[in-house]
Amino acid sequence: STSTEAIRATLFPGDGIGPEIAESVKQVINVAGVPIEWEEHYVGTEVDPRTQSFLTWESLESVRRNKVGLKGPMATPIGKGHRSLNLTLRKELGLYANVRPCNSLPGYKTRYDDVNLVTIRENTEGEYSGLEHQVVKGVVESLKIITRQASLRVAEYAFHYAKANGRERVSAIHKANIMRKTDGLFLQCCREVAAKYPEIKYEEVVIDNCCMELVKDPGTYDVLVMPNLYGDIISDLSAGLIGGLGLTPSCNIGEGGICLAEAVHGSAPDISGKNLANPTVLMLSAVMMLRHLRFNDQADRIHNAILRTIADGKYRTADLGGKSSTSDYTKAVCGHI
Amino acid sequence: STSTEAIRATLFPGDGIGPEIAESVKQVINVAGVPIEWEEHYVGTEVDPRTQSFLTWESLESVRRNKVGLKGPMATPIGKGHRSLNLTLRKELGLYANVRPCNSLPGYKTRYDDVNLVTIRENTEGEYSGLEHQVVKGVVESLKIITRQASLRVAEYAFHYAKANGRERVSAIHKANIMRKTDGLFLQCCREVAAKYPEIKYEEVVIDNCCMELVKDPGTYDVLVMPNLYGDIISDLSAGLIGGLGLTPSCNIGEGGICLAEAVHGSAPDISGKNLANPTVLMLSAVMMLRHLRFNDQADRIHNAILRTIADGKYRTADLGGKSSTSDYTKAVCGHI
Ligand SMILES: CC(C)[C@H](C(=O)O)[C@@H](O)C(=O)O
Ligand SMILES: CC(C)[C@H](C(=O)O)[C@@H](O)C(=O)O
Repeated sequence: STSTEAIRATLFPGDGIGPEIAESVKQVINVAGVPIEWEEHYVGTEVDPRTQSFLTWESLESVRRNKVGLKGPMATPIGKGHRSLNLTLRKELGLYANVRPCNSLPGYKTRYDDVNLVTIRENTEGEYSGLEHQVVKGVVESLKIITRQASLRVAEYAFHYAKANGRERVSAIHKANIMRKTDGLFLQCCREVAAKYPEIKYEEVVIDNCCMELVKDPGTYDVLVMPNLYGDIISDLSAGLIGGLGLTPSCNIGEGGICLAEAVHGSAPDISGKNLANPTVLMLSAVMMLRHLRFNDQADRIHNAILRTIADGKYRTADLGGKSSTSDYTKAVCGHI
Repeated sequence: STSTEAIRATLFPGDGIGPEIAESVKQVINVAGVPIEWEEHYVGTEVDPRTQSFLTWESLESVRRNKVGLKGPMATPIGKGHRSLNLTLRKELGLYANVRPCNSLPGYKTRYDDVNLVTIRENTEGEYSGLEHQVVKGVVESLKIITRQASLRVAEYAFHYAKANGRERVSAIHKANIMRKTDGLFLQCCREVAAKYPEIKYEEVVIDNCCMELVKDPGTYDVLVMPNLYGDIISDLSAGLIGGLGLTPSCNIGEGGICLAEAVHGSAPDISGKNLANPTVLMLSAVMMLRHLRFNDQADRIHNAILRTIADGKYRTADLGGKSSTSDYTKAVCGHI
């Protein structure tokens, strides 16, 4: 039976538009004939009155067991006394690397048409330590933590990724001219790993300079690896080059070989439930997940179908300047698979 | 005599191309008829064997006394056991705000033609505290310090600047969703100041989002105020939008009303002494200094002369795609004054 051959994958549809766009993804994966059996769990900020929990143990266990999953948007409530769910997932599942390929979309015009880069972000430490305190009234400090272990791990992943994907160069982004010890350690780790990959070019670029070059000539870059906050900044900047967070997929690599693909855009509560959401990012993230599972043919077919639908222009959602509903766009993609 | 009416201003020509471009600035200021008497001091990394010092007490005193100055590029030697001179000057002179107007140059084409924003960067604390240490082997931390005093001071300056320059909106850039206490305090201070300027719109933007919007649509922004590192990143990103550091002037506001205008680009040792350097940024920075001194007419004339020369295109230096020497370009600017 197919169910014995099927791959079990976890699905967190998430908040807001999450469930709608997750539905679209299930459809395209079905049409492409990938035997995925979804284990669906609700993780989000719209609390279930029965559990009173945003994040159940079962949800985490599901990813740990399946080692592969797809995650929709989760709202980050500000100042409500609990940590962001995104951060909690990163921590609990040891999601140490966030990978975001950023490619210009044929037919979707922005100021840039030559973007083809991948940001790989350390996802667990740095400026995100959560360690902050008031020293005296009016003086607060926060701790940025860089460890050799996490830096080596993300550097290893970056070079591994570059090699596996036929990329030529890895650029480590830093501010070691100011943070000599923390960013210095990060660079030191990158250098050690680089030495094991003589076939991949390695360079170091100061973050301010990197941002300037990215907007002047993004073609300068190939694979970029960096500490947490720089990754947060540069991955969004890069997304902006090709049109925004509505077009850039992402996937998180975690301890024990976990791959959790993720739509990094918001949960768009204003349009949720209205069949207006753009499922492109979640679809493209699912494509990353499929490649991880080595369903390369199916991944290519879905990817090309998305590109063709967007290039076509007939079935774009409102955020891309079109008038299409979520379901019509999804149907169009399915038609191209 | 003119010397009694003359304004004394400090000049640090700096390293590399510094002396050449400072020469250009002196010429244009002369031609514009501004009665400036320069007090010239060498501050830089090319050590004078007599003093063995990069930075003399007299140099600092000169700025403190004149309260106005112009500074060329100073190289930052990496890992040579002493602090960057740029940072030392910021600290010693209490240069708490770095102001960088960023405007598209008519006739100099980039991907953007609608850039008209100003970044105001807190310049003394934050991630630049220099406080770093190894906790245990393989674990290092650095401290980001945010104080109420420095945050209020830069926020005050930003709103003052916005009002004095007819700007409509101030955006505070932060990552308070992660660094709730440090960036939270920064925002709190901005809000307090904003309340005193009801005629200026105020908004808060998360840094990753800001970077994305800057590359998608820089017209979204007007005046941006932010902690040190974000300012470092966003001011360079913004410079990239209009063509790079070779086109964006800057000025530092310091304790006791000091105004130290500054070319933020590098010292370009490779072309130093060859009459190839582009003096535009130092000239534009001098224009900021002149406005500070209320030589508004002369500032306008110099500014327009620079814009016209660049728009003309006949006398551009190599970094702007031209073939002109430093001195020919300078002559052309002088001709337009
Ligand atoms: C929502 C926020 C906590 C998060 C981050 O800063 O990591 C987001 O910007 C992201 O990039 O996933
Ligand atoms: C050279 C470096 C120390 C400096 C900084 O980071 O402030 C530079 O990037 C700047 O913006 O002036």
